[in-house]
Amino acid sequence: MAEVSTKPYLIRAINEWCTDAGFTPYVAVAVDETVRVPGEFVANGEIVLNISALATSRLLIDNEAISFQARFGGVPREVYVPMGRVIAVYARENGQGMAFEVPRAMSAPAPVAVASAPAIVPPADSPAPPEPPRPPKPSVDRPKLTRIK
Amino acid sequence: MAEVSTKPYLIRAINEWCTDAGFTPYVAVAVDETVRVPGEFVANGEIVLNISALATSRLLIDNEAISFQARFGGVPREVYVPMGRVIAVYARENGQGMAFEVPRAMSAPAPVAVASAPAIVPPADSPAPPEPPRPPKPSVDRPKLTRIK
Repeated sequence: MAEVSTKPYLIRAINEWCTDAGFTPYVAVAVDETVRVPGEFVANGEIVLNISALATSRLLIDNEAISFQARFGGVPREVYVPMGRVIAVYARENGQGMAFEVPRAMSAPAPVAVASAPAIVPPADSPAPPEPPRPPKPSVDRPKLTRIK
Repeated sequence: MAEVSTKPYLIRAINEWCTDAGFTPYVAVAVDETVRVPGEFVANGEIVLNISALATSRLLIDNEAISFQARFGGVPREVYVPMGRVIAVYARENGQGMAFEVPRAMSAPAPVAVASAPAIVPPADSPAPPEPPRPPKPSVDRPKLTRIK
């Protein structure tokens, strides 16, 4: 049997938790040639995507990739992110979620851009990994955003 | 809206991953008076439970608790573990999974026992938290068992 990663299961879990808790699920992505996103919204080799039901259509998180359609600057675009390129999934509102170790591309294209489309998060406004915010007062029982190697 | 913990979502995720990957899901529990398990199988205030479909019936993992029926020494017993008492969920075969910070009871009853029922894991044979085993060769993309505070 081929080895199955826990990563897609954990990403689905955090996405479901965000939805149930009324939070907005964000996914941070290390962009390389296997990732299909609007290149003009990639900054420092990364892009942060809003995968909430309001911002996306046909969202699919299977064991291979996250894929959906979303509007960027009013234009519908197809997004495809292989599991291996997901850096983190977390709630916009409090930064809770999970982070993952991802090998970076040697020379990532890094056109800096600011976007206002619903499915994209401007890098300057977002709590971007690798320094995700911590919830202000973590209770003992509450899992925090933790980088998984 | 009452605060929703990520913990039950992550426990369900690891349980589903174990099942899909052909592994046996184990749950380590810090026993206190809110936990319903056969006391004779509790060791050092902890019990490790096999929650696989083969070992349990009527398994339910909701946002409040893990509950199921299982045979202990041939006798069917009801098990109820509130979310807050779950120390870890992981695959028996490689120790991959997640661990959680749990406050310990002040004076946990600790009758040492060895069990052979299918739903219970003898402490001496099991990779018991708080020192869960690490997978032998973690790849960069593979989440490891990580203690969540």
